[in-house]
Amino acid sequence: MTVADRIWHHCRLATLSPGREGLGIVEDGLIAARNGIIVYAGPKADAPTGLGAAESIDCEGRWITPGLIDCHTHLVYGGNRAEEFELRLAGASYEEIARRGGGIVSTVKATRRASEDDLVSGAQRRLDALLAEGVTTIEIKSGYGLELATERRQLRAARRLAQANPVTVRTSFLGAHALPPERAGDSKAYIADVCEMIPALAAEGLVDAVDAFCETIAFSVEETAQVFARARQHNLPVKLHADQLSNLGGAALAARFGALSADHLEYADEGGVTAIAHAGTVAVVLPGAYYFLRERQAPPIDLMRRHRVPIALATDSNPGSSPLTSLLLAMNMGATLFRLTVDECLAAVTREAARALGLSDEAGSLDAGKRCDLAIWDIERPAELVYRMGFNPLHARVWRGQT
Amino acid sequence: MTVADRIWHHCRLATLSPGREGLGIVEDGLIAARNGIIVYAGPKADAPTGLGAAESIDCEGRWITPGLIDCHTHLVYGGNRAEEFELRLAGASYEEIARRGGGIVSTVKATRRASEDDLVSGAQRRLDALLAEGVTTIEIKSGYGLELATERRQLRAARRLAQANPVTVRTSFLGAHALPPERAGDSKAYIADVCEMIPALAAEGLVDAVDAFCETIAFSVEETAQVFARARQHNLPVKLHADQLSNLGGAALAARFGALSADHLEYADEGGVTAIAHAGTVAVVLPGAYYFLRERQAPPIDLMRRHRVPIALATDSNPGSSPLTSLLLAMNMGATLFRLTVDECLAAVTREAARALGLSDEAGSLDAGKRCDLAIWDIERPAELVYRMGFNPLHARVWRGQT
Ligand SMILES: [Zn+2]
Ligand SMILES: [Zn+2]
Repeated sequence: MTVADRIWHHCRLATLSPGREGLGIVEDGLIAARNGIIVYAGPKADAPTGLGAAESIDCEGRWITPGLIDCHTHLVYGGNRAEEFELRLAGASYEEIARRGGGIVSTVKATRRASEDDLVSGAQRRLDALLAEGVTTIEIKSGYGLELATERRQLRAARRLAQANPVTVRTSFLGAHALPPERAGDSKAYIADVCEMIPALAAEGLVDAVDAFCETIAFSVEETAQVFARARQHNLPVKLHADQLSNLGGAALAARFGALSADHLEYADEGGVTAIAHAGTVAVVLPGAYYFLRERQAPPIDLMRRHRVPIALATDSNPGSSPLTSLLLAMNMGATLFRLTVDECLAAVTREAARALGLSDEAGSLDAGKRCDLAIWDIERPAELVYRMGFNPLHARVWRGQT
Repeated sequence: MTVADRIWHHCRLATLSPGREGLGIVEDGLIAARNGIIVYAGPKADAPTGLGAAESIDCEGRWITPGLIDCHTHLVYGGNRAEEFELRLAGASYEEIARRGGGIVSTVKATRRASEDDLVSGAQRRLDALLAEGVTTIEIKSGYGLELATERRQLRAARRLAQANPVTVRTSFLGAHALPPERAGDSKAYIADVCEMIPALAAEGLVDAVDAFCETIAFSVEETAQVFARARQHNLPVKLHADQLSNLGGAALAARFGALSADHLEYADEGGVTAIAHAGTVAVVLPGAYYFLRERQAPPIDLMRRHRVPIALATDSNPGSSPLTSLLLAMNMGATLFRLTVDECLAAVTREAARALGLSDEAGSLDAGKRCDLAIWDIERPAELVYRMGFNPLHARVWRGQT
């Protein structure tokens, strides 16, 4: 007899199970969990008899999806860029904004000035907004320190958020995000710095993956490859901000290093898409930044479909290009701006987002053996999660079996 | 001695007062209210002595704006259109969607089927989302009944929402929203129906204004003029859905009838803009519908500025073209998509939105004599209300002096 400690019944499931079609819908469903792990998820009629759960929760016909996963965020930083936003709308030139301390440098300065407590408390408010929408796993990048001490402080803040909240956090070290002011004109020296930070931060258990920004305004393919090579020496998986503003061959580079994900991809071409398809790299699309920056070229979704690239979707929550803290809204943008279907959007923030974090064995679908991370919704059909804007129909959130 | 029953101090004010520049900022502000009316709002240093308030609230340096005003919504309706949204993304043709009962007709059917209680409870969830962001006044239109009984039920539901919630509701009768199926091909007969509904519903005290949809897919200028003439006979102010999808001269028509507002206006030309400028008609822009419908032509904001047309901004919350229940997000869309400045966005959901509802004497700014409707925010600068997406920094909401 399977013993469960908690059962959810009288519910409809969007299991997102890889073994089921589409959303993997189960009309009269049941989920049973033990010690925070799903022991059964599927039709009530097929549930093993004698589950013997201590607690049984009547969901009154509500829908249950896997807990949502935001697989690309820059949640931890100092300050914000509201003033820059305001100046730009008022017609200030780029020079004027730069003179008044705008751009990524302003966030780097504010983050360097911030204490670890400041970083935690600032990010906590943003995390609260995400958790309120059913997010149970989140990725958090560093990359606003661009020097060892501050990068460490950002990653430690991310670990503290995980300790203080019912959420799974995966960290990515993004030292190769931008050139710090003190290394201006010498990206070679800074890439050497980054390659030294990797083992130091990894030794402290702060790094789950290594990320980089490969772009004309950031680092070249060769520089990124150096960083990735160092990451692989330390058995760290890699991810890449690739082909967002131009086609530098970022997707192909990500594929070459077997990256977990290649993110943005607006300018990726068919060669890049086929490369990540073969490498099993997930395409993470970020419509919030596309919207906020008023970009015109959407990522090549049709190519991704044709080559069966798994597509994830995230908030890219950050102060400069995507001050977005709603994964539901990110889904609406994915559908409205990139024409992702409802099924694609929902897979993109569950099953495929888990894959983009290397967590496919643990999260992202309602399947026995995975963590019991659930979002329970007051909706009549899953499409409502994508269709609405600025509305949160979450009824309850379950992380590792606990409400 | 002025006597107040409540005082808010240690706060920064964006008064939006017509007598002050820009946002009308007061750094060390104080607001005093008596019986729900502001008796003083301005610098603490200039406050009359001996206000003698019973209750004094320390705002700990937070910002206070006027309570937000959503001046264009279709909040009361039956059903939703998530299935249609899903089908369209999956590539269904318009014929197929029509065959499966999509389009406005589906909302008309669902609204006709809904009881008054159904309409109230459906709208309550959406209203909750708006109130949570500091909205203290909302306009609600009918227009999904297209027959007397259901139009009445929608308007009665709007009045019940006002009774049950701490919010001011203004109703607009929008019988001339679309041609009902039973009048297909005979808009003349339906306009006659609408003209009969106006006195009937007005006599019941259900109508604060009369609205219409003037568009190639809806009603002509002449038909709209008939409806407006009837409204004016009953001393009801008018509003107009004008020039959203094509230039039919809707703005000029609105001006001709001294409309409170002309709404949408994507295709308005300089003649239309100058006409509403002279008439004192407010331009209400609705970026949620523009975004959701993936329109390409933004309203002529520069012309509006040049001719000093007051600009308001609203959610247009409705199931077909703007399933949006966040006025903060509407502001972000106004800035991002229409390039409104931060000051324009904030005036557009306070002072100018009040004007669009004929409530300038009562609401929309922090001035003595107006209702004490406040939104108190956890922000460092007002621009944060426009800059963020999917984040709600409301600390407290005050309606008629009560939290
Ligand atoms: Zn990013
Ligand atoms: Zn409307």
